[in-house]
Amino acid sequence: MTATLLIATLDVLGTFAFGLSGALVAVRRKLDLFGIVVLAVATGVAGGMVRDILLGDTPPAALRTLTPLGVAAGAGLCVFFLGPVINRLRRPVMVLDALGLGVFCVAGCHKALEFGLAIPGAVLLGVMTAVGGGMLRDMLAAEVPRVLHEEVYALAALAGALTYAVALRSGMPAIPATVVAALLAVALRLASVRFGWRLPRAPWG
Amino acid sequence: MTATLLIATLDVLGTFAFGLSGALVAVRRKLDLFGIVVLAVATGVAGGMVRDILLGDTPPAALRTLTPLGVAAGAGLCVFFLGPVINRLRRPVMVLDALGLGVFCVAGCHKALEFGLAIPGAVLLGVMTAVGGGMLRDMLAAEVPRVLHEEVYALAALAGALTYAVALRSGMPAIPATVVAALLAVALRLASVRFGWRLPRAPWG
Amino acid sequence: MTATLLIATLDVLGTFAFGLSGALVAVRRKLDLFGIVVLAVATGVAGGMVRDILLGDTPPAALRTLTPLGVAAGAGLCVFFLGPVINRLRRPVMVLDALGLGVFCVAGCHKALEFGLAIPGAVLLGVMTAVGGGMLRDMLAAEVPRVLHEEVYALAALAGALTYAVALRSGMPAIPATVVAALLAVALRLASVRFGWRLPRAPWG
Repeated sequence: MTATLLIATLDVLGTFAFGLSGALVAVRRKLDLFGIVVLAVATGVAGGMVRDILLGDTPPAALRTLTPLGVAAGAGLCVFFLGPVINRLRRPVMVLDALGLGVFCVAGCHKALEFGLAIPGAVLLGVMTAVGGGMLRDMLAAEVPRVLHEEVYALAALAGALTYAVALRSGMPAIPATVVAALLAVALRLASVRFGWRLPRAPWG
Repeated sequence: MTATLLIATLDVLGTFAFGLSGALVAVRRKLDLFGIVVLAVATGVAGGMVRDILLGDTPPAALRTLTPLGVAAGAGLCVFFLGPVINRLRRPVMVLDALGLGVFCVAGCHKALEFGLAIPGAVLLGVMTAVGGGMLRDMLAAEVPRVLHEEVYALAALAGALTYAVALRSGMPAIPATVVAALLAVALRLASVRFGWRLPRAPWG
Repeated sequence: MTATLLIATLDVLGTFAFGLSGALVAVRRKLDLFGIVVLAVATGVAGGMVRDILLGDTPPAALRTLTPLGVAAGAGLCVFFLGPVINRLRRPVMVLDALGLGVFCVAGCHKALEFGLAIPGAVLLGVMTAVGGGMLRDMLAAEVPRVLHEEVYALAALAGALTYAVALRSGMPAIPATVVAALLAVALRLASVRFGWRLPRAPWG
């Protein structure tokens, strides 16, 4: 009960943080109010939509309940009206975004396992749930997705999803597995920002 | 009966207009004959395809009937062979495109309501049906989708879809609701072009 | 039996070749190890994923079996560690890629016909299966998809898929139809590279 509430709360916070990041990219690209809200919504809900489409669970959750749409659109409006404030809150926004990453990679992996996928496919879906919104955000902004060339972002989602799947299949109950896996993803992400970790590029590129 | 025929006719005209806009972008980007036809088809049918995928109505209508594919591809060939003529017909093409916008936002919203979505999800799907093709067109052309930063385009679709959904749920029969909602979207779109309406950008951006 | 094995082998080779092409683009765009593997996987499996989503066959095959993911990711690692060698093997890689094109256009068309699509829709799906991965690769790299403006690539896939569909519907058994159609696509592709065939651009563009 409390765990469900915790996940739901984190999910809302994560959607909000993803929405903020989408809206901030939209402002940088000089989009208008509508473009800002669209990029906020796309970043906030696209990852889960892609997951639901791939699992055949249509219409996707984000079209059936109002919460994710409303939260992400609200994030867009916040940026539109309060942009400079939010720009100054860069660090808390980044922490929120890491929380979203942790929650989404576990939630995506969990749903994929429930729909009968084996571990590799479920882990991949977990990662897509976590990073899909950000990738669409950057594709809409006509940029190479940040997740492909910057920092340990998708890798943290991969570690979280893999940990969750393996823990669950090893017999750990869902709640501790969720907490451990999500915290691992969040910690990896925050540490990579704090210490400037990067993945190597091709040595000969 | 006549209403169905009217919708079907407008649908063909709208697909044709969307196909023209895709093909004109393709020519501007120096694509070859195949690229021109692909962009015409993508712009003409992608919105409806995304709607059908999200509703789980697969294979999408555009793969089951020949008409939309043929009409959109035909628009591509028209541009290839008659480009300068079509460039001179810029105003009628724009009006056709506005008609397509009005028809598609109502048709998408209608189908989503039939599939059991509530009003917010159905309105969102209506907008995606209307603007999805143009967004894919611009993403394929490696540009920021025009709908995100130019003119009152998606907003007109939003107004049309919302009007349709609310009218229908308030007990108005489908045919007058369709006419009123589609006309509203078309009028908003044409007025925004005529008077140069724009949405505001972030005041601090 | 032997035919199934042949198709499966070609499918693996094609996925590997598509993965190499994705990874090479990633290196050129200075992506890190993760980005290289993601672009390899996206290029290798996205075409089939889009096909399965459009057919409503979810979760898509690429999430249910490990082989395509593993093969495509392996291609990414090969490029990361052995890039200069692979760059020198440009000609064999191009031939492998043409093989992949031939196999994928036929396999996509075959599956679409099995799912009850008529010939035009099935041919379109065959082409999307063959070129979808490369299109996503270029969209992720923020470039106009190469298939839209370079060489006879998608057209070869179109010829292969159309030949397969027509041959099958004319009563030819599946195995010879597969061989003839795939070889036609491969031959068209290789000939277009060898002789520098290009499609015309709009004469007035």
